[in-house]
Amino acid sequence: MIKELIYKNRSYRRFDESNKITESFLKDIIDLARVSGSAANRQPLKYKIITKKDESNIIFSNIKWAGYLTDWSGPAEGERPSAYIIIFYDRNIEVNKEFLYCDLGLAVQNILLCLVENKLGGCMIGSINKENIINKLKIKDQFEILLILAVGKPKEKIILEELKNDNIKYYRDKNDYHHVPKRKLSDIIIT
Amino acid sequence: MIKELIYKNRSYRRFDESNKITESFLKDIIDLARVSGSAANRQPLKYKIITKKDESNIIFSNIKWAGYLTDWSGPAEGERPSAYIIIFYDRNIEVNKEFLYCDLGLAVQNILLCLVENKLGGCMIGSINKENIINKLKIKDQFEILLILAVGKPKEKIILEELKNDNIKYYRDKNDYHHVPKRKLSDIIIT
Repeated sequence: MIKELIYKNRSYRRFDESNKITESFLKDIIDLARVSGSAANRQPLKYKIITKKDESNIIFSNIKWAGYLTDWSGPAEGERPSAYIIIFYDRNIEVNKEFLYCDLGLAVQNILLCLVENKLGGCMIGSINKENIINKLKIKDQFEILLILAVGKPKEKIILEELKNDNIKYYRDKNDYHHVPKRKLSDIIIT
Repeated sequence: MIKELIYKNRSYRRFDESNKITESFLKDIIDLARVSGSAANRQPLKYKIITKKDESNIIFSNIKWAGYLTDWSGPAEGERPSAYIIIFYDRNIEVNKEFLYCDLGLAVQNILLCLVENKLGGCMIGSINKENIINKLKIKDQFEILLILAVGKPKEKIILEELKNDNIKYYRDKNDYHHVPKRKLSDIIIT
């Protein structure tokens, strides 16, 4: 069961933008991030839900999509995310910086898997013009952007395949399917 | 469904040690970590499965449990993990160090949720005498220990509760139930 969700959970970058996602639904999902593990239980992560068009536009124009797809600058109108979740570090909470990012991964995975269960999908975006977003959305200095999660109803086919010649770059084929090479199990287990 | 697994997925520290866990089962679970998201798809994580008693003893004597439980030094004989998964960074793979730890969280959450689905549970351990473990298990210099996951059949009751007075410390009550205070949803969502 969980295996099926995990395999379905891919980094989706093209969505059916007409599919609306409510703030209330995203709050329920953030509740699952809330109860994820946290180093020394410090819980330093904070979340902001973006569903309004004007705020979504601010996010969209300050993030970069899919570094390896050099001839694609991001989803076209109509294929953009229906919502975003900005994930912050609350600087008022003292943490070990490395495990802060581990907390981030634990929380994000809960969110992503729950999205997939609801026939939605997300994409983690780390390439962000943070200063612009902080200014335009009037975010307090207390909060540092760690990651932005794009959320929507996926409208693309993603194919996992075996990594060859150590080439980790994902790519699109002539049918516009997105291929993601993954290392073999035997290559990631140390005996 | 996933919500139930996420809520059940706690940091378990006392187990039914008589419950054996096979290497083959843990390999299947690591396959779910294998297909988790990875920053720029670099996939820098490697895994080592520990199920043999002598190796488990090495791990056990080189980790620290539950920092906030100052009068408890770890699970007694019979309540120890049945297995461990050591998670490494493969230094031959170039990464952004912060997102390495995000990858770690994403991968670990897949493993933990799958354990819970199989009526097992895990505990992430970050307080590790890495040098001792590297030496005694003869791990190559190429690999840096990031985290150790203790795995077993949980034998303790864990209660989530609302965090009060900003006190994040988990504790055990007179029934030996383990309580974990979590921030309220309204305290982690920025409006």
